[in-house]
Amino acid sequence: MAERRMPTAPQLRIWRDFIETVADIQGELGRRLQDESGLSAADYSVLLALSDESGHELRSSELALAIGWERSRLSHHLGRMERRGLIRRDDCATDNRGAVIVLTEEGSTAFRRSNVPHLRAIHELFVQRLDDEQLQMVDEITRALKTGA
Amino acid sequence: MAERRMPTAPQLRIWRDFIETVADIQGELGRRLQDESGLSAADYSVLLALSDESGHELRSSELALAIGWERSRLSHHLGRMERRGLIRRDDCATDNRGAVIVLTEEGSTAFRRSNVPHLRAIHELFVQRLDDEQLQMVDEITRALKTGA
Repeated sequence: MAERRMPTAPQLRIWRDFIETVADIQGELGRRLQDESGLSAADYSVLLALSDESGHELRSSELALAIGWERSRLSHHLGRMERRGLIRRDDCATDNRGAVIVLTEEGSTAFRRSNVPHLRAIHELFVQRLDDEQLQMVDEITRALKTGA
Repeated sequence: MAERRMPTAPQLRIWRDFIETVADIQGELGRRLQDESGLSAADYSVLLALSDESGHELRSSELALAIGWERSRLSHHLGRMERRGLIRRDDCATDNRGAVIVLTEEGSTAFRRSNVPHLRAIHELFVQRLDDEQLQMVDEITRALKTGA
């Protein structure tokens, strides 16, 4: 069975280098986001997912799916974001898909303020380091990794 | 200044797709590691870094650098790993580089047991989804992203 095979040493080296480099970039993006906008990468993901929705709201189960988190971890995080006024939980509307999570005016403002410096950082740390051909390679690799899923 | 530029919509789409796909793969690897070996991805990183050292020990500051974590986050995590018997902290030898963190026999066994299923999962979820040329592209992209750092 192909599934039981092991990576060779060079394949494993490529994987580890790759994953470490991605982690370094995300670490740097996270530090800048925090310094420049007072938001964590997790805050930003939640605000982005809600901003992308018309009506600026999502069921907590849909939000968990959108940002790829376990519901319990998300729930704790949403509690902290709610205390900071960035989101509101409409518990009255809770059904088996979870509560309705609503982006507040304050959350929307925080997101908009953070966005330009964050996008500039993505340009600097990712886009600018690759030529056009390499950026297309990233897209091809992403598709290959996804279709396997 | 080139640093102040913003990504175009297609560039941003490539970045988000890429980073989400990598997160999905790491999430799946983490779930399998937990299910198969009872270790979190963070446990595995610490055990791997210590296993790679001759003498199976590292200063906590070196360990933090090796796995790319803030020292305070690492310190909390090491506390939990120490209570599970996976590592030992030699506080007597503490200097400004932090305590000496030692891989225990139990930690070494847990790491060895987890390794084969984890490497198989890396093969299945990463290596096998890419042809040789694409794997070389990953290496090229990693180098380009790194040299920008």
